[in-house]
Amino acid sequence: MMLRSSTKIVGLSNRRLCNVELLDKIFKRCKVLTIDNMNPHVKNIEYAVRGPIVIRAGELENELKQGVKKNFTCITRANIGDCHATGQEPLTFLRQVVALCVYPPLMKDPSFPDDAKQRADRILNSCGGRSLGAYSDSAGVPVIKEDVAKYIAERDGIPADPLNIYLCGGASEGIRNVMKLLMTTLPGKERAGIMIPIPQYPLYTASIAEYNAVPIGYYLNEADKWSLSVDELKRAITEAKPFCKPRAICIINPGNPTGQVLTRQNIEDIIKFAKEENLFIMADEVYQHNVYAKDSKFYSFKKVLTELGPPYSEMELASFMSISKGYMGECGFRGGYVEVINMDPAVKAMLTKAISAKLCSAVTGQAALDVVVNPPKPGEPSYPLFKQQKEKVLGDLAEKGRMTTELFNSIPGISCNPVQGAMYAFPKLDIPKKALEAAKAKGLAADAFYCFALLEETGICVVPGSGFGQKEGTWHFRTTILPPLDQLADMLKKFERFHVNFIQKYS
Amino acid sequence: MMLRSSTKIVGLSNRRLCNVELLDKIFKRCKVLTIDNMNPHVKNIEYAVRGPIVIRAGELENELKQGVKKNFTCITRANIGDCHATGQEPLTFLRQVVALCVYPPLMKDPSFPDDAKQRADRILNSCGGRSLGAYSDSAGVPVIKEDVAKYIAERDGIPADPLNIYLCGGASEGIRNVMKLLMTTLPGKERAGIMIPIPQYPLYTASIAEYNAVPIGYYLNEADKWSLSVDELKRAITEAKPFCKPRAICIINPGNPTGQVLTRQNIEDIIKFAKEENLFIMADEVYQHNVYAKDSKFYSFKKVLTELGPPYSEMELASFMSISKGYMGECGFRGGYVEVINMDPAVKAMLTKAISAKLCSAVTGQAALDVVVNPPKPGEPSYPLFKQQKEKVLGDLAEKGRMTTELFNSIPGISCNPVQGAMYAFPKLDIPKKALEAAKAKGLAADAFYCFALLEETGICVVPGSGFGQKEGTWHFRTTILPPLDQLADMLKKFERFHVNFIQKYS
Repeated sequence: MMLRSSTKIVGLSNRRLCNVELLDKIFKRCKVLTIDNMNPHVKNIEYAVRGPIVIRAGELENELKQGVKKNFTCITRANIGDCHATGQEPLTFLRQVVALCVYPPLMKDPSFPDDAKQRADRILNSCGGRSLGAYSDSAGVPVIKEDVAKYIAERDGIPADPLNIYLCGGASEGIRNVMKLLMTTLPGKERAGIMIPIPQYPLYTASIAEYNAVPIGYYLNEADKWSLSVDELKRAITEAKPFCKPRAICIINPGNPTGQVLTRQNIEDIIKFAKEENLFIMADEVYQHNVYAKDSKFYSFKKVLTELGPPYSEMELASFMSISKGYMGECGFRGGYVEVINMDPAVKAMLTKAISAKLCSAVTGQAALDVVVNPPKPGEPSYPLFKQQKEKVLGDLAEKGRMTTELFNSIPGISCNPVQGAMYAFPKLDIPKKALEAAKAKGLAADAFYCFALLEETGICVVPGSGFGQKEGTWHFRTTILPPLDQLADMLKKFERFHVNFIQKYS
Repeated sequence: MMLRSSTKIVGLSNRRLCNVELLDKIFKRCKVLTIDNMNPHVKNIEYAVRGPIVIRAGELENELKQGVKKNFTCITRANIGDCHATGQEPLTFLRQVVALCVYPPLMKDPSFPDDAKQRADRILNSCGGRSLGAYSDSAGVPVIKEDVAKYIAERDGIPADPLNIYLCGGASEGIRNVMKLLMTTLPGKERAGIMIPIPQYPLYTASIAEYNAVPIGYYLNEADKWSLSVDELKRAITEAKPFCKPRAICIINPGNPTGQVLTRQNIEDIIKFAKEENLFIMADEVYQHNVYAKDSKFYSFKKVLTELGPPYSEMELASFMSISKGYMGECGFRGGYVEVINMDPAVKAMLTKAISAKLCSAVTGQAALDVVVNPPKPGEPSYPLFKQQKEKVLGDLAEKGRMTTELFNSIPGISCNPVQGAMYAFPKLDIPKKALEAAKAKGLAADAFYCFALLEETGICVVPGSGFGQKEGTWHFRTTILPPLDQLADMLKKFERFHVNFIQKYS
């Protein structure tokens, strides 16, 4: 009110309603920060995993809470790899260690096992004032970095140096910290090009957009279980060179959203290609525990690169790991690490400095990571339960991956590669012409149109392939395989019914 | 070895040692990512709070561990506001709530009080799968955002909307998320100018450097208890306008490193200045609980701006809060929030989207924040202990601030403004000419030279004023007031002895 009467626009006092609208418009124009003058690179970010479909799912959930009647009674969130949210139980030992670190008086509680107490005590001894509430070193709590190095060394049979380890708030933060170093942002300089798989996990395109770099997409071969061919890498980089300076190649193995596990030969070929093209390798290996196919095995890029010998073993590599996936699924704790090898020491100092300004990642997440890299060993009191919980989660995931693939492949008009690893299926959809037209009329990608219809009719929330990238003219969606077995079976049944109706409706 | 023999440089086989050196040089040049071709803006980051002096302190600590004899037996880390690392005890209630959330079987433990259990239960009910291990919404766990809004409303007597609250990994992350929006990074566009106090907390200059913006420093008036004058703001912005587009003003209140608490009148003047200059206000209010001076009181920018009425109450503001400071000092949990008001809804959607790509802040830190904004109330079982612990920490800090100021002011050649708030003293040093010359010969700022000498001779680690910015030709350092009373007294005595010797040596 005061605002309106104090403005100096005259002759408005008799036309009140109209004035309010006019003045509102003026005030809107007066905002310091508007969609037109904000950082354009932030505007360019897209992140489909929490995009419009997921926002709509939230709205539907609220409607259900308010008693609105639907064809479904709850939303099935298959859009995001959020294990605990979909019913997976936390690992007892991991939570015990973190609880002991958070509240050390529990050290006297006889119901907590000794091995958990020992681990918590060791972590606290490496924290300022023996408190998780103290900042850690920028790169993380020293003993946890040591444990990460030991874990990597045992995994690969190749030494790892704690000084190459940086603990970070989930792999996302680590990926962003490393990618940032590769940007050449001075005016007149060529923009950096970053090679990424298509389909990809949208953190990559989001960060590349924010940093004003150029994404160089290389297609995975859907006809051959989403494998990665060097010819395709060459095509992609050749086409990109006139537009940018290619600086790095990102590989996601096991794949997200595609679920493939690279063969050792494949990894060797990629490394040789990166050497030839002078690329920094960014290996997203967060699903290293999630390998289900009998003929698949996880090989780290570090292992393969090192075993290839010089000059490959001298190449710069960053490998990313997270506690959000695997069999632990502790997404909310925001824990992870990056190992950098062969990085120029001066650049490493800059990486450390850049992290320092943000102080450190959450020490609670660091403590949880310690359990993942230093789990109970045979003979320790917590070993049997830990082993049982781990095997149950991984066994169920393997079964769910199989079930999902089979179901999708049994539906006419859908084809799905095997879920060799990770936590997702990425089936291909044949969408009828009429549906393509209906989608176009709504200004939606055809697979987004399909996924919105699926959500509205069944409450199942999956992410359209267009959010990950796909070959022109093909349509997909990503679904997690996380819901408990019975719920997943139910979801797949509902899905099938929906699909049949959809095809009928638009044929 | 293989590497060397396989390279095609001929005629080197008879001069092996020399070749190795030469080839090493070539390989160094062959790094993909070097200090010369890395992101220049990351190179420009400086963060003195964990800079060269702190790195040297770490080295000395290692030497002590290895048994090297020094004039001191331990390093006194007064460089960083890391409360628990310097001996402050965590709040029992806060840790109980977080432990219950981390390990829900403790809900059955009768030694945990009912109010802690109720709070933990309420938080878990708002988490996916009742687990801290699930991702939260991008902006945070819904009930925690509600509690933050209630806290702000009670603090200011002005309503707050949970939809304006974004939980973040400490205030640093929140500041970076908001500042990022203000950047105009398109080629040919003017760079954004961000007004910051001098002296300032170096997160600001670090982030401004990384985002390739222009820092517009306005000097705080040391002669008047580090107060902030609008004339100085006008001088600073006028001088900066030819070089950038001023877009925002950052205010740290209570001040870091300067410890002043702004008066209400001062805040009104700043708001009016920001309105006139069309600036977005970023209010760093992380020390809102840390006010010690009898005649000082904390006023939030939101309260003053709202009570000024239109047009000021329509201005865009972001206010930042953290759980790392105050009386809780939970730095390692990385918890905090930002409240944005009057932000263009389209811009807010972009802020939410940009955060989504990083998924969420650590949910453990969010849970800890809930206790800070929703502490035990009179009548609840945990109230007496909570009140006692809180008052002890704040009472001690007030006493330590007084003691520190008095001691520094009693030393010839040092003057120190009162620590009205926050956790630091920022005394001014008169440095003798000979010491200025010795510093110059070493290529160091005079106060860095002084602080290095202090560290080497006493083990006391403080940060030179040059890391925060100061008027040309003046020298300062920042020390925390955190060590326990007896240790602080001891540290100040050692400091005095060092200073007297230093002056003697160089006079």
